Amino acid sequence: MTTNSSTNDRMFKKILIANRGEIALRIIRTCKEMGIKTVAVYSTADRDSLHVRFADEAVCIGPPPSRDSYLNIPNIISAAELTNADAIHPGYGFLSENAKFSAICAEYNIKFIGATADQINAMGDKASAKATMEKAGVPTIPGSKGLLSDVKEGISIANKVGYPVILKATAGGGGRGMRVVWQDSEFEAAWDSARAESGAAFGNDGLYLEKYVVDPRHIEIQVVGDQYGKVCHLSERDCSIQRRHQKLVEESPSPFMTEKLRKKMGEAAIKGAKAVRYEGAGTVEFLVDKDRNFYFMEMNTRIQVEHPVTEEVINFDLIKEQIKVASGVPISGKNYEPTMHAIECRINAEDPFNNFRPSPGKITNFHSPGGHGVRIDTHVYTGYVIPPNYDSMIAKVICVAQTREEALSTMERALSEFVIEGVKTTIPFHLKLLKDPNFRAGNFTTKFMETFEYSED
Amino acid sequence: MTTNSSTNDRMFKKILIANRGEIALRIIRTCKEMGIKTVAVYSTADRDSLHVRFADEAVCIGPPPSRDSYLNIPNIISAAELTNADAIHPGYGFLSENAKFSAICAEYNIKFIGATADQINAMGDKASAKATMEKAGVPTIPGSKGLLSDVKEGISIANKVGYPVILKATAGGGGRGMRVVWQDSEFEAAWDSARAESGAAFGNDGLYLEKYVVDPRHIEIQVVGDQYGKVCHLSERDCSIQRRHQKLVEESPSPFMTEKLRKKMGEAAIKGAKAVRYEGAGTVEFLVDKDRNFYFMEMNTRIQVEHPVTEEVINFDLIKEQIKVASGVPISGKNYEPTMHAIECRINAEDPFNNFRPSPGKITNFHSPGGHGVRIDTHVYTGYVIPPNYDSMIAKVICVAQTREEALSTMERALSEFVIEGVKTTIPFHLKLLKDPNFRAGNFTTKFMETFEYSED
Repeated sequence: MTTNSSTNDRMFKKILIANRGEIALRIIRTCKEMGIKTVAVYSTADRDSLHVRFADEAVCIGPPPSRDSYLNIPNIISAAELTNADAIHPGYGFLSENAKFSAICAEYNIKFIGATADQINAMGDKASAKATMEKAGVPTIPGSKGLLSDVKEGISIANKVGYPVILKATAGGGGRGMRVVWQDSEFEAAWDSARAESGAAFGNDGLYLEKYVVDPRHIEIQVVGDQYGKVCHLSERDCSIQRRHQKLVEESPSPFMTEKLRKKMGEAAIKGAKAVRYEGAGTVEFLVDKDRNFYFMEMNTRIQVEHPVTEEVINFDLIKEQIKVASGVPISGKNYEPTMHAIECRINAEDPFNNFRPSPGKITNFHSPGGHGVRIDTHVYTGYVIPPNYDSMIAKVICVAQTREEALSTMERALSEFVIEGVKTTIPFHLKLLKDPNFRAGNFTTKFMETFEYSED
Repeated sequence: MTTNSSTNDRMFKKILIANRGEIALRIIRTCKEMGIKTVAVYSTADRDSLHVRFADEAVCIGPPPSRDSYLNIPNIISAAELTNADAIHPGYGFLSENAKFSAICAEYNIKFIGATADQINAMGDKASAKATMEKAGVPTIPGSKGLLSDVKEGISIANKVGYPVILKATAGGGGRGMRVVWQDSEFEAAWDSARAESGAAFGNDGLYLEKYVVDPRHIEIQVVGDQYGKVCHLSERDCSIQRRHQKLVEESPSPFMTEKLRKKMGEAAIKGAKAVRYEGAGTVEFLVDKDRNFYFMEMNTRIQVEHPVTEEVINFDLIKEQIKVASGVPISGKNYEPTMHAIECRINAEDPFNNFRPSPGKITNFHSPGGHGVRIDTHVYTGYVIPPNYDSMIAKVICVAQTREEALSTMERALSEFVIEGVKTTIPFHLKLLKDPNFRAGNFTTKFMETFEYSED
């Protein structure tokens, strides 16, 4: 989607990847293909990770937990200075949406491959993000204007927009600090527990209120903006299959999508991104109700875990586009629509028959599936020890085919070939899900997992 | 490319795969995705092969060498009868172009997923294939009409078409029974040795003569025909990088292709296929000279080793199309052009620094590359023992990207990640090739390997 530029004097010479696991390896792969040198950083728990092995240089930045290594800004900046990296790619999670880190990189004249501090700030605080979107003409969910001052104000607004409503932490994420309220009498208890939880989790107990959209779809639009004010969209991903707000499966196109809705959501996402002069790859998340009304939820100012499903249906390397845009290459401004159907299953080292309990440990045998329509992104291998310190995702399987039905069949086939021994994984869960008639029919909302029943064979 | 058919009563219930190695696994994968049961056959040397493990049923059909197992028609037919398979997919090599086998399958009311005996016969004998093509209006190389009766006739025709000329065995393949002759005085010796070689190799010492095309490209057109007389083409593959007539690398589109030439070659391939009412997937191979004149070389009435490069640039599963067409599904008749660039490197267990000497044995460590744009087709794994009895190809790496330059970079990256320990492989050769300025520039012919120099680091 970037315009061709045969020479680019501003292209980075060396990129430090401030992340770990599959996304660090993912970024290194693209850098190699672009002829850009790479620096891996790693915690002592990640010494044997493939991202360390495949980078041109590797710097240990401390021990787990993450605040002492992957979140330790001075150590990461030192590693970049030491290795003379001229850019940092933050991946997802960790420092990828940390405005302070983006600002510090700028101070040190190291290009942060992501949003500027201003853009992150504009979107990082949910209440102000919503206000920005509203002003830009993006549909938002009716609710409080900014933070609530007290229970009384909350109840008054709840009655205005109509129950059910949801209380949300302004600094929240991953479902923490969120409470659905169905009537006045439940309000105060929900308020107290949401405040306590968000204060503990984020150091910020500010709450806002929204009308609660019952049984919505989670559909997000991928956007890319350049440094010259142009923004394009790359259509949607449906991420409705979630467990406790953690996405499990993503696909593009959404089985719920219509041409008209895609046009409207795409335009809204571009409007929102342009409102903050958004640079780089970003994702505008929407809730879509059963009547195909859609509401802005949040904007993620970074690459998403599920970006490969978009890559497979539009045939572009999004990490490459991020790097090109960050180096100053302009985009054409053309939007892209899916020509194929792609689906991603996140493979976690968890026991799906025991409440998704993490299952770290040594992988005693690993063999990945292959063939037509199958892509594997993973940092693990036979003999790798999954450390208990980080999230439990160990692989992403992405399948692509002419139709959704065929992509699902390819996924079933690929997962049935996937050998991972020594730890429990979510592969058996995905195989059950792929057999479910409602899932197969594309008939699901974000509530799907609350009623999906399956058991060990 | 087949038309949509939501129900297909004639679709096969169970397919026996009369092959081994990566192609057997490749076919099983597609059958699984289509909900078709599979039967693997295997020689005693292939007990531990993945194609045996992944099939629904497996039948041992004898020991090596292949004449006692993979070429043993009675044993394979018995296995199909025993397991109640209603179709046989022959893959490539072995019985895939054996007219007798195709006819016997028909007698037993087992659908041979490939060409009919008549079609195979029409294309299997090179001299009659050429006559058929000439009659259909496909450009052929000037030369003898059919077989030569003696040296005198040969010299006379050589003088008519002009030296250099090439003597070819009518039953030939893989370069055997072929001799280039540059002048009258060399003719008789070449005649004698080509006859002796082809008689020994094929039990048929018939020779024909053609003008020798100096430094050509090998460019082939993939076609698909249905049972109702429709044929479409799926554009070209450039297979000019060959060593002793064995393809090493294939790509689509050809860096030498023009829109005009593709149109002309595509039309010629369709004309040729229609001349024999061709059914199924087939490949029409052409030599293309430096002025972009093209000449029919041969038609392969089966799936090719290099079919994945076409799959990756047109996004269809060719094995699925073969099966659908064989079951009676019609094609739309639309042709397909590459929208991306794909390249395949054949990974052989051979020592590229010692004359490509086979290197069978145990694979002590195996880890395949992954990520965006990388497809791996392989039947091997950690602990697999490569038997010395068969060809030495152990994996195909196929990379796809927006441009040729990007696809080559992805290939370099993927090969540099590929871990195969315990045996020698051709990966280091491919990495050298990918650095060669002429190869990189797309500037090569079938003679490339004769002068390509590289050495171990």
